Amino acid sequence: MPFGGGTSVVGGVEPLPGQHGAVVTLDLRRLSGVLAVDPAAHVATVGAGTTGPDLERALRAHGVTLGHFPQSFEFSTVGGWVAARSSGQASSGYGRIDDVLVGTDLVAPAGRLVLPALPATAAGPDLRRLVLGSEGTLGVVTECSLRVRPLPAARHYEAWSLPSFADGCEALRALAQERILPDVARLSDEEETAISLALAGDHPGVALVRRYLRLRGHHQPCLLVTIYEGDGHDVAWRRARCRRVLRGYGGVALGSRPARQWERERFRGPYLRDALLDHGVLVETLETATLWSNLARLYGAVRGALRSALTRVTPDPVVMCHVSHLYETGASLYFTFLAPAEAEERIALWAAAKRAACEAIVANGGTISHHHGVGRDHREWLETEDSALGLAALRALKRELDPDGIMNPGKLLP
Amino acid sequence: MPFGGGTSVVGGVEPLPGQHGAVVTLDLRRLSGVLAVDPAAHVATVGAGTTGPDLERALRAHGVTLGHFPQSFEFSTVGGWVAARSSGQASSGYGRIDDVLVGTDLVAPAGRLVLPALPATAAGPDLRRLVLGSEGTLGVVTECSLRVRPLPAARHYEAWSLPSFADGCEALRALAQERILPDVARLSDEEETAISLALAGDHPGVALVRRYLRLRGHHQPCLLVTIYEGDGHDVAWRRARCRRVLRGYGGVALGSRPARQWERERFRGPYLRDALLDHGVLVETLETATLWSNLARLYGAVRGALRSALTRVTPDPVVMCHVSHLYETGASLYFTFLAPAEAEERIALWAAAKRAACEAIVANGGTISHHHGVGRDHREWLETEDSALGLAALRALKRELDPDGIMNPGKLLP
Repeated sequence: MPFGGGTSVVGGVEPLPGQHGAVVTLDLRRLSGVLAVDPAAHVATVGAGTTGPDLERALRAHGVTLGHFPQSFEFSTVGGWVAARSSGQASSGYGRIDDVLVGTDLVAPAGRLVLPALPATAAGPDLRRLVLGSEGTLGVVTECSLRVRPLPAARHYEAWSLPSFADGCEALRALAQERILPDVARLSDEEETAISLALAGDHPGVALVRRYLRLRGHHQPCLLVTIYEGDGHDVAWRRARCRRVLRGYGGVALGSRPARQWERERFRGPYLRDALLDHGVLVETLETATLWSNLARLYGAVRGALRSALTRVTPDPVVMCHVSHLYETGASLYFTFLAPAEAEERIALWAAAKRAACEAIVANGGTISHHHGVGRDHREWLETEDSALGLAALRALKRELDPDGIMNPGKLLP
Repeated sequence: MPFGGGTSVVGGVEPLPGQHGAVVTLDLRRLSGVLAVDPAAHVATVGAGTTGPDLERALRAHGVTLGHFPQSFEFSTVGGWVAARSSGQASSGYGRIDDVLVGTDLVAPAGRLVLPALPATAAGPDLRRLVLGSEGTLGVVTECSLRVRPLPAARHYEAWSLPSFADGCEALRALAQERILPDVARLSDEEETAISLALAGDHPGVALVRRYLRLRGHHQPCLLVTIYEGDGHDVAWRRARCRRVLRGYGGVALGSRPARQWERERFRGPYLRDALLDHGVLVETLETATLWSNLARLYGAVRGALRSALTRVTPDPVVMCHVSHLYETGASLYFTFLAPAEAEERIALWAAAKRAACEAIVANGGTISHHHGVGRDHREWLETEDSALGLAALRALKRELDPDGIMNPGKLLP
């Protein structure tokens, strides 16, 4: 089992032996570092075991950035991002890892797959896309060539309130389809916004904001965090256009502070989760994506499924959501749910809620994962989006690259 | 053998029987038409047999466009574009077909692969990318869901002269990496520009342009055609930024006429080719792509290889080139070569020149095809970019989806 940062949240690095007698974990930590930066092509070649902070530190010395900041950034590795098809918090600006991987090297039990760095090709199916999402089941990603960009000269933070989640989603759709998106755009629904405001405490500024928003008719405000990066002209241009669109959907500007606050805390979620678990609160996140035309339906269905599953233990569970990865054709939905649960019933409650959500996702046109991957937890739902034939194709691939089935057993394939 | 428009230029639809006794051609013409347009998600679902003109006509009625205009546009089909990983002349603005295919349906001998329309997913390897580039060897693409965009409100044509091909490439690199590219950007090298000017004839305007460019120090000018599409603000903004960059690289604006002229004639190349063949001139095109840092080397190597191969029959063959598909990390090179050749020696000369070019491409870090595909003609070079293991993986896939090897034998896989 290839092991990078060990940050999978879907059981992607659980030590399952499969039909074997034991599990060998391959620690990739020493496949670390930036091996080369091609300044003309904006391509960096890096060891797959490089963690987020090490990568960005080394790239910074070359004046470039990958711009890839998943919540697991502090620990997760480039190889893990590729293997699990990661998407960073600035994906609207910098793209998914899928979009920036131009070449890679996979060492499989059956041999080595060397895919050179190319800007584009039509030479048959793109095998890079088989490595992306292979989750350690085909071989070990050892090296990746990634598109990088110059460090941004300008960065602008701007938070907004939208009058409802529905209005906010429509505004984001307009920005995505006009292709003027901020590099980070993250819209919380009513419940997530209410909880953020509550967590901000009794600060007098927060009370003022609440009052101001009520006056503006935002009785259940939805917070939108935007961050723009680039050269000064580009940032100013996109900001001006976005402001016009957001105002058109009833948006009220809240200044930079909430956006800076979000950025400071953006890797803290998992720590908070552990603290809550220690205090008898079950907390979990899950995510999906769908077309814009289906977003409201999917949101309602998953939220409803989670609430139903959790009302077994509490009349008023917290189920909150944000949209944070935007495409011209659709967007992701990221749910967080909380419910009080004694330690002994927690796993059963988690399993029930997770199952209810996954079933709602596949029954309502969502993907089983937008950026967490499949791992152990999503295997049984893969067939609904890949077809039985697609799974057979993936199994055939695995037999060819890993004939003895020794690579990360029990993951990805049902 | 699935047959769409039959426009492959790499032997992709040659009727080769493989180990079978005959070839059955599957005419996909009647899988035609736009089946649905999702106006909120900007997604159109279309039959794979739909030709370019039929597609754009039907989409226009919905106020949208795919923006995909390969040179074969008049005859080629959506299914062919997907199967051969096509890239249109406006790829800098609208993306490759790879970028816009959000869902598809492949009917294989072993069953049906239904891949639903999704904006993005991390649910294992993206099987859409196996259909893209499968070239009819895995099954028949029957239906495609594609990202579309509103018909552009504004369109602006602008031609430029650059002082050299090298300067022009650097200018295009700057535009691509600043992400302000025109939707069409096509730079001809010195030789292609000279021939375009010669073909423009003795028109007094042409003589004036020549004189003007000489005065500006462009003794061997390189023509750059740009077309901007979008809303008026966006077009004006990109134009202003591009002008500044192009001037910085010594660019001289030539007005809109040469760009409009190019657009009028952009599907005529193949007809001209036939006429030249009738007049005893061998003419062929081939293309590749590489990283920006390697573009000059690859250009020199392929051009040199073609010239050497052709000097067997003429001391002064025509080998010309343009760059027309731009990425942050690199670009394509599209070569056209001409040489006088009697009918009986033409095939041998073609084979020698083609082989010399392909060998130069793979020896110098290019892809064997940026948008023509593999077909029959590029099979033997596929291993250099996919590795032996990659070919084994593709063969395993084919065995699974097409166990009797009946789908388009003799193509793609060596």
